Amino acid sequence: MKTFINILLLTSAAAFGQAPRMDTLVSPEVQPDRRVTFRVRAPKASEVSLFGDWMMPETRQAMTRDEHGVWSVTVGPLEPGLAIYTFTVDGVTAPDPINPRIKLRARTSASLVDVPGHPPELWEARDVPHGKVEANWAKSKVTGDTRAYYVYTPPGFDSGRSVRYPVLYLLHGNNDTAAGWTDVGKANFILDNLIAEKKALPMIVVMPWGHAVPYTGSQSNNTATFERYLLEEVMSAVEKKYRVARGRENRAIAGLSMGGGHALQIGLGHPDLFSGVAAFSSAVPGNFENRFKPLLDDPEETNKKLKLLWIGCGRQDTAFERNQKLSELLTAHKVRHTFHATEGLHNFAVWRRYLVELAPLLFRKDTN
Amino acid sequence: MKTFINILLLTSAAAFGQAPRMDTLVSPEVQPDRRVTFRVRAPKASEVSLFGDWMMPETRQAMTRDEHGVWSVTVGPLEPGLAIYTFTVDGVTAPDPINPRIKLRARTSASLVDVPGHPPELWEARDVPHGKVEANWAKSKVTGDTRAYYVYTPPGFDSGRSVRYPVLYLLHGNNDTAAGWTDVGKANFILDNLIAEKKALPMIVVMPWGHAVPYTGSQSNNTATFERYLLEEVMSAVEKKYRVARGRENRAIAGLSMGGGHALQIGLGHPDLFSGVAAFSSAVPGNFENRFKPLLDDPEETNKKLKLLWIGCGRQDTAFERNQKLSELLTAHKVRHTFHATEGLHNFAVWRRYLVELAPLLFRKDTN
Repeated sequence: MKTFINILLLTSAAAFGQAPRMDTLVSPEVQPDRRVTFRVRAPKASEVSLFGDWMMPETRQAMTRDEHGVWSVTVGPLEPGLAIYTFTVDGVTAPDPINPRIKLRARTSASLVDVPGHPPELWEARDVPHGKVEANWAKSKVTGDTRAYYVYTPPGFDSGRSVRYPVLYLLHGNNDTAAGWTDVGKANFILDNLIAEKKALPMIVVMPWGHAVPYTGSQSNNTATFERYLLEEVMSAVEKKYRVARGRENRAIAGLSMGGGHALQIGLGHPDLFSGVAAFSSAVPGNFENRFKPLLDDPEETNKKLKLLWIGCGRQDTAFERNQKLSELLTAHKVRHTFHATEGLHNFAVWRRYLVELAPLLFRKDTN
Repeated sequence: MKTFINILLLTSAAAFGQAPRMDTLVSPEVQPDRRVTFRVRAPKASEVSLFGDWMMPETRQAMTRDEHGVWSVTVGPLEPGLAIYTFTVDGVTAPDPINPRIKLRARTSASLVDVPGHPPELWEARDVPHGKVEANWAKSKVTGDTRAYYVYTPPGFDSGRSVRYPVLYLLHGNNDTAAGWTDVGKANFILDNLIAEKKALPMIVVMPWGHAVPYTGSQSNNTATFERYLLEEVMSAVEKKYRVARGRENRAIAGLSMGGGHALQIGLGHPDLFSGVAAFSSAVPGNFENRFKPLLDDPEETNKKLKLLWIGCGRQDTAFERNQKLSELLTAHKVRHTFHATEGLHNFAVWRRYLVELAPLLFRKDTN
């Protein structure tokens, strides 16, 4: 593995006026046993700590200082996958200064550590045919800005000129970006691998940016605007630009956290458009019973139309109770669904596993 | 414009176990006159400074502390465009903790500030048809990893089924990523705008990752490996997957800094493959006179084959002298070329302008 050389190195970049010195500190350092050492050089700091998305909310892990002013901590073993973390140095929370792998957000940013599995997990790049991830830039009349929705096209899409593909709309959580499901969720590699194993049907995955109003943390008026953006602009553009199979049978919508709320809201609100709906650790829409009264009151019709209703949540997630209550409500109204209660917090370790489980269920004639 | 509210706000993310509080600090704040205020909350720090890519290398701008522990500085007016900056808080250099716009690198990261032009500059998203930016994942036998090369396809590419397009290979600098030319260089918007104005021909732009060996700062053995990766894998995949116009007349190669070195090395080394070569602020290959002796010794043949040889550099760039000497060497050997000496440092403000000037010259029958 990499060794930790505590010196400074003059880089060739210096000759061109960029960052003149490169610290050769290694952070994060992933051990073969999946323990991870995090390091930050902060000789003048008096308190340095780590927060990672594998930790309970509101907790922090203290780091300790060596004689060179390098603070470090070793954690784990961590689960195989991409984990998100930040350092807090004397009260300033920021990404790891050394590590170039960044979790982009709508506000602030964090670092990523990639813990490989042996053999590689289903969300890792295996030696199989790969699809593409396309950033489609377009001016939006609904949001007022020029933004990109991301589209995964499966291997062979460019050569299979006559084939049409079903479409999964895959939505991210609060304070994320349109790149979240690929950069961190690894949706493209998950689909590549499942398609190569013939466990999932080849499909197109559309990942729009879920913040449709300027992001301030409070997003009360976001959902309705996002729904218009998704249905009026993204969906119509996708159906025009890509070789998609038409009709509700070939359309599903899924999301995590805020995006799970969007998937329930938009998917259940438009049974004419979607035959599959999945919500991961979701922000269940408030006032659900009144909002979706017709759906709950006519389970026979609902069960006929909704080929797949999939709700997953980790038991250690603060959203667990809300999701469990949603499942109980659906059960009481005889609405067929899967409630997938697992171990896990509110993080991508859970959501990658959920996508691995969901994708094989999509667009099957015999689902449910 | 945005106002600066010095309070803390509990976000909806808290309910789902993510970052529990969101600081409402605004940074950066771009004024209408293009002055920019940078802020960081660091109450315990004793020294905070700013470095931006509009500043001379090795310099820093001090920031001052207010009574709430917020350090700030106002600079500019800055040129319209995306600028790159970092904060150094008590010796720790990192991106702006608040600002989500990140300059990704091969090692470390930095922040981006977007200074809009009025009217919008050619590198800004205007209300014109937009092309796509595609991340093509593929396992590389040359580099040993699975990596993405980025491809810009112009507006109408998907519908123009019978049209074939010329290809520009566009290379980034040291410590950058395959996303650098689009995320920061805005190559996609530059092409969109120039194509809309009919100033540039519609073309495909291919942007591979220029670090073909593990990045350590020293890249002595990188160039040869990158050349193999580009020619043996990227180019052959592009010619298979995309509707490209064949032949050297329809291929050009350009790059900035390290990528300018790559463009000269690969482009001039393979006149059978490229008819256009451009180097921006480039790391001119060492021992040029011996390395390209056949090219210098037969200017008639060179000038016949090389439709375009374009060398640009800013006078304030530490690479200026090397580029000027290259131009003098070419002139002494009667090799036709453009030497474009401009004002400017070693930064994307220069390189975006150079791409704006270069793109209209490419793939013209009458070039030179």
